[in-house]
Amino acid sequence: MAHLLHIDTSLRTDGSVSREVSGAYAQAWRAARPDGRYTYRDLAVEPLPHIDAAALATREADGDRPLERRLVEEVKSADTVLLGVPMYNYGVPSSLKAWLDWVLVPELFADQETGEGVLTGTRVVVVTARGGSYAPGTPRHSFDFQEPYLRAVFGVLGVAPEFVHAELTLAGVVPHLAQFKELAAASREDAHRLVRELAVT
Amino acid sequence: MAHLLHIDTSLRTDGSVSREVSGAYAQAWRAARPDGRYTYRDLAVEPLPHIDAAALATREADGDRPLERRLVEEVKSADTVLLGVPMYNYGVPSSLKAWLDWVLVPELFADQETGEGVLTGTRVVVVTARGGSYAPGTPRHSFDFQEPYLRAVFGVLGVAPEFVHAELTLAGVVPHLAQFKELAAASREDAHRLVRELAVT
Repeated sequence: MAHLLHIDTSLRTDGSVSREVSGAYAQAWRAARPDGRYTYRDLAVEPLPHIDAAALATREADGDRPLERRLVEEVKSADTVLLGVPMYNYGVPSSLKAWLDWVLVPELFADQETGEGVLTGTRVVVVTARGGSYAPGTPRHSFDFQEPYLRAVFGVLGVAPEFVHAELTLAGVVPHLAQFKELAAASREDAHRLVRELAVT
Repeated sequence: MAHLLHIDTSLRTDGSVSREVSGAYAQAWRAARPDGRYTYRDLAVEPLPHIDAAALATREADGDRPLERRLVEEVKSADTVLLGVPMYNYGVPSSLKAWLDWVLVPELFADQETGEGVLTGTRVVVVTARGGSYAPGTPRHSFDFQEPYLRAVFGVLGVAPEFVHAELTLAGVVPHLAQFKELAAASREDAHRLVRELAVT
């Protein structure tokens, strides 16, 4: 059975563009698969603790790690993982890094020779929202530590994520970005169109 | 008065290379400045919460943010900020990202034209420990999301951090890295020598 795991991370519950666009993906996915299973996790409203010394010691002693097991099983049981990820200080929210530090266990790593792993075949869709533009050719392109970072870590799992970016979300807020309001609106519309397409393919 | 703010982030309290090397810096710094002020913060033992919707709402309403104020004042009052940073999943620990999300307030941003800001003149020394090697020319160079990331975020504050890397710390643990044990030992010794030099200049 098709299973979508949808994870949001934006601090904002109202007015969040990453939640709006990831929600549009989820809605289209579910409409196309009325019998599909849907799991939702909100890392902002219900944050995970930072991985800590006790968790590390339990890992090293091969003891029972119920939180880690639950999070890893959730990912393994999904055929699509959808992440809504705002850019905070050029990187991913600390809540998402905490999730990654729990989830990235050796069991999920792809074979270094073949590139095949437990998650081969899992689709990962990352919907980002960022205040400025980080597209190739823009002055801040090298400040994008969202997409290259998530490509690297999911790559280790044998997965190539698909990205949908809603850019310039601060164009209505920050004076020096006001000139980009039309681009921001177009980027948001493009993101909506793209997730509707991706959700049904 | 000279003031060193020393922040450690490794989950390990025993056997942590980043703690060992950052500790060596702090020791040499303090020996050279017996009257200096020293502040220590341990983000693993006393983690900060992820920044959350309540904190964001208080920021936007310009309300009182005692935790943010305390963390920002700590950084502003230091003339040297020393970070001990292990690499977790190719990035910084989530606890350090949480600290950055609290600390990176507009008040600290450098002027975009002049590059000058509140922290101009503050020295930032980052001691990293990483399981493999991420040096230029190594296969995993592009997987280093520690140094480029911290350069970018401190750059926004008008600060160019100095980096000391202890590499290949997993050479004694991971079979395919066992061939690099001598390199690992040399990297650790180099890191110790470098921090002793940096601490007195």
